[in-house]
Amino acid sequence: MDAGGGEQLSLAAVRDQLIREEDSIVFALIERAKRPRNAPAYSAAAGCGSVAEFFVREAQVLHAKAGHYQKPEDVPFLSQDLPPPVFPTKGYPKVLHPFASSVCVNDAIWKMYFNELLPLFTADGDDGNYAETVALDFACLQALSRRIHCGKYVAEVKFKDAPQDYSPPIRAKDNNALMNLLTFTAVEEKVKKRVEKKARIFGQNVTLEDSVGKPHGDTCDSHCKVDPKVLSKLYDIWVMPLTKDVEVEYLLRRLN
Amino acid sequence: MDAGGGEQLSLAAVRDQLIREEDSIVFALIERAKRPRNAPAYSAAAGCGSVAEFFVREAQVLHAKAGHYQKPEDVPFLSQDLPPPVFPTKGYPKVLHPFASSVCVNDAIWKMYFNELLPLFTADGDDGNYAETVALDFACLQALSRRIHCGKYVAEVKFKDAPQDYSPPIRAKDNNALMNLLTFTAVEEKVKKRVEKKARIFGQNVTLEDSVGKPHGDTCDSHCKVDPKVLSKLYDIWVMPLTKDVEVEYLLRRLN
Repeated sequence: MDAGGGEQLSLAAVRDQLIREEDSIVFALIERAKRPRNAPAYSAAAGCGSVAEFFVREAQVLHAKAGHYQKPEDVPFLSQDLPPPVFPTKGYPKVLHPFASSVCVNDAIWKMYFNELLPLFTADGDDGNYAETVALDFACLQALSRRIHCGKYVAEVKFKDAPQDYSPPIRAKDNNALMNLLTFTAVEEKVKKRVEKKARIFGQNVTLEDSVGKPHGDTCDSHCKVDPKVLSKLYDIWVMPLTKDVEVEYLLRRLN
Repeated sequence: MDAGGGEQLSLAAVRDQLIREEDSIVFALIERAKRPRNAPAYSAAAGCGSVAEFFVREAQVLHAKAGHYQKPEDVPFLSQDLPPPVFPTKGYPKVLHPFASSVCVNDAIWKMYFNELLPLFTADGDDGNYAETVALDFACLQALSRRIHCGKYVAEVKFKDAPQDYSPPIRAKDNNALMNLLTFTAVEEKVKKRVEKKARIFGQNVTLEDSVGKPHGDTCDSHCKVDPKVLSKLYDIWVMPLTKDVEVEYLLRRLN
């Protein structure tokens, strides 16, 4: 989180950040969809895991050396121990409870991405471009993970706004009550519609002939590089529920 | 190049590929524009170069191990020697003259990107997110480099279509005559307009309130995440001239 300025955190700033992350997720999926499924990139070679696992592990080491994974919304995949930064890093404002960094749902994101999501938006096929493919996967995973772990800030802001509402279920370790407090169906419906619209706009084939470049309607979704309905489904059954899992996990230890 | 199928290469297939690469370049610039300039990422630390140089060198090693840099349009920056792939790679159809891999204008792209382009589309400022910033720079550099080095295929297709036109200036080593043969002003104007339009469409802030999500007109370009005019300038004075440099360099040795 950078929005919000200094030690202050506002729901508006967190929401702006989440809305911007939507663009990153849509872009990353559209880029990955350039390549077909490329299944061999995901099957373990003798003794050394898959190209995807190799790439993610090594990329995380490199990003850590460059100074990444210092902020609570940036957590690595594959429960990896990472080296310290090679270069001096700038501190970031500590606005969350200290254990925020240990809240992580990346195992669930990893499984969801490779087992459920990838087949929904990539074409069958194998074009042999495995290195490029797994680099594009890594970009998708990072964008999804960051969006979902920004739930830590959402939870902190909501708690600060109404500690009297959140403290009793936190003390009672009542997951369901917390989940109910954190669920705003009308907001979630809006988010689903917006990401669907973003996929329609960002995934269109832009030509000079379009009179005003307006997005294709539902009848033309087959021309979009990623089916807009996949985005709305992704948010509906994975991104928003996982974000709320992060929020609940954060809140449950908020009073420790 | 993957379009074109097998050993066959057509100008239509190459153009489709170049048009798709435009989207990647626009997305990459929009993503980089999330962060301010972050100048400290580009100044050399004692003894070990800048964060940007460190990241690009190490990322290229990783990408090479994963199997990248096998195709003639994928060439590394910083004249780096790269390790062989760790995983088996698939061959690609050899449609170009064998020396195609050695044609490389990445030094010019590197200087253009950091010295000229970056200040045009990033805000002044330093938010400390250097690792993320240089990873986004690397994505921009890769997208630009791939687009520009696809000029090798453009040159090959054009040569094959009219060897009688190209062979005399090639034998005479007449750069200017080749440049004239490769220049189609009307096509270039169309490309500039299209990338500008893409920046306007992909860089808009999508909200549910927009009635049809049509792109902002020129009056609203200040709301775009990257100024659409920067894209048209990028193509006009750098991307298209550098692509033609690649084409000329390729053609000059085409008859060897």
